[in-house]
Amino acid sequence: MQVKELGEFGLIDLLNRMVVRERGGPDNGAAFSLRLLVDTGDDTAAWRTGAVTELFTTDTLVEGVHFTRATTPWRDLGWKSLAVNISDVAAMGGLPLYALVTLGLPPDTEVEDIQELYRGMLEISNKYGVAIVGGDTVRSPVVFITVSLTGVHPGQPMLRATARPGDLVGVTGYLGGSGGGLRLMLDRTAVSPEAADYLHRGHRRPKPAVAEGRILADAGVAAAMDVSDGLADDLGKLRLASSVSARLFVQQVPVHPLLKEAFPQRYLELALHGGEDYLLLFTAAPALMDRIINLLPEGAAVVGEITPGQPGSVVIVDASGAEKVAGRAGWDHFG
Amino acid sequence: MQVKELGEFGLIDLLNRMVVRERGGPDNGAAFSLRLLVDTGDDTAAWRTGAVTELFTTDTLVEGVHFTRATTPWRDLGWKSLAVNISDVAAMGGLPLYALVTLGLPPDTEVEDIQELYRGMLEISNKYGVAIVGGDTVRSPVVFITVSLTGVHPGQPMLRATARPGDLVGVTGYLGGSGGGLRLMLDRTAVSPEAADYLHRGHRRPKPAVAEGRILADAGVAAAMDVSDGLADDLGKLRLASSVSARLFVQQVPVHPLLKEAFPQRYLELALHGGEDYLLLFTAAPALMDRIINLLPEGAAVVGEITPGQPGSVVIVDASGAEKVAGRAGWDHFG
Repeated sequence: MQVKELGEFGLIDLLNRMVVRERGGPDNGAAFSLRLLVDTGDDTAAWRTGAVTELFTTDTLVEGVHFTRATTPWRDLGWKSLAVNISDVAAMGGLPLYALVTLGLPPDTEVEDIQELYRGMLEISNKYGVAIVGGDTVRSPVVFITVSLTGVHPGQPMLRATARPGDLVGVTGYLGGSGGGLRLMLDRTAVSPEAADYLHRGHRRPKPAVAEGRILADAGVAAAMDVSDGLADDLGKLRLASSVSARLFVQQVPVHPLLKEAFPQRYLELALHGGEDYLLLFTAAPALMDRIINLLPEGAAVVGEITPGQPGSVVIVDASGAEKVAGRAGWDHFG
Repeated sequence: MQVKELGEFGLIDLLNRMVVRERGGPDNGAAFSLRLLVDTGDDTAAWRTGAVTELFTTDTLVEGVHFTRATTPWRDLGWKSLAVNISDVAAMGGLPLYALVTLGLPPDTEVEDIQELYRGMLEISNKYGVAIVGGDTVRSPVVFITVSLTGVHPGQPMLRATARPGDLVGVTGYLGGSGGGLRLMLDRTAVSPEAADYLHRGHRRPKPAVAEGRILADAGVAAAMDVSDGLADDLGKLRLASSVSARLFVQQVPVHPLLKEAFPQRYLELALHGGEDYLLLFTAAPALMDRIINLLPEGAAVVGEITPGQPGSVVIVDASGAEKVAGRAGWDHFG
């Protein structure tokens, strides 16, 4: 069987099960008391180390798969390659700390372009308190950038597996902006300069929700993840990890007026399935959700609920009250 | 200017200087007291965390650049992709701990091949006490494997920058086996089955010198690195990081009889420039070196000395006493 037939999530599931089944270690961990707290399958791994919890994540961008030079200039690519990793740390409620950067580069890459890439990395690193402390540079027929990032958390990180029936589902910002920005560039859609600027920034300069993640974790939120593959898909993953069902109310999904203006027919599709928004999706009991909406500087929108009963799919409820089961409309790398 | 004109080491140097100059962080680190101890430019980064020092490294293998499917079967590739990272931790005197695995895969990759890859990763992980705790799986036109690895060390890691004039230069095992194995496969050289087996294993199943690294660190060795790009090149890097000069005595470089048998004309070239042997190169004052040779189960060979005077190149001294300055004959990714 080929990877494209099994699909990205089938492959990840297969390998994760294999690792957990056949893994004998960590023998060294026991000796040094760096006890594993969060294993494969969440936004980051985590272990206890002295007084804090340490987080560990990695994410890769491949040219022609995750970006093109036409839609993501080098400097923005640098920003984004760190942003997608910082977002994973934010999803656990942590602060990002040390990064290693691996560059796969064709030999005819312009050095000036790589300096631009690093300028973007340094911009976001300095904004979020991250230090690049090493990496690897290798020849490759295709440009790829892999960042590995550690983070710290004062206690118990937020997980995907801790959503409970009766919880409401919240998101920390507008959805669909990044997907809208990409569509705009690919289709050369004519829109107002304000909309173009908003959507381009959404795609090229995502702002990881580190402050929001800290507020959620401090307030006692147990379940969170970042929205990278699209709201519907990511809620599906949260649901699966928590063995629960969920309902998503389309009417309540926050959409920026400029996205609506640019894509009057497609804004909902972009908001549900666009991906790469890098805000946080979380669940909380109704009383806690009320409190959180007041704590977050820019609030949060309740977009769904975790429902009791047998674990099942995400049910999408439209404006008329009609229900349908969410299919996989998001990003499968090998699909 | 293109990357291939600047060269791998020029590019790394440029980016490292840029990072250190323009880096504002780590703001978060200060808050959590995970103080950076080893910055860019060594085998791993390192910081203090509670009672131990934590290490952090990453290394990538790209198909057609670092391996081919003909010379490295999937299972061996899995072993090797972790081995090259474990070796960096060994070079600091640490124990490897948690790993993230990133796979770049064409969609038509066979799932069975990836399972074989993971079997090799699990083999070496279980042998060295490493736990794979996550990663990323992405579509890519070329197969690549990036591993990020943490490690632990009870105190001050061994560095590249701490070699001192008067130190002797030691290596912890035979050199040239991996390069010999590769040449054997590429040139289809006819050799004895024993030599073929020894050399193939050297190329496909390098054994990171974790135990040796721990012994060196405990004995008080300050300067070490792993031999990945070839002894002459790597000694050049150590020399540069320490701002010293070095002499390398070709006659004293340990070469396995089976490498000599297979490559009677080329064994010295392979031992000096072959690369990928993943043993440790270290320096120590003569009295300490004597003690270490007795402490290491398989001993160590003294292959050179750190010389006083202006920092300069590595001087290679041959059997007749003739001297020449080592050129860069090792691996430049973009050359």
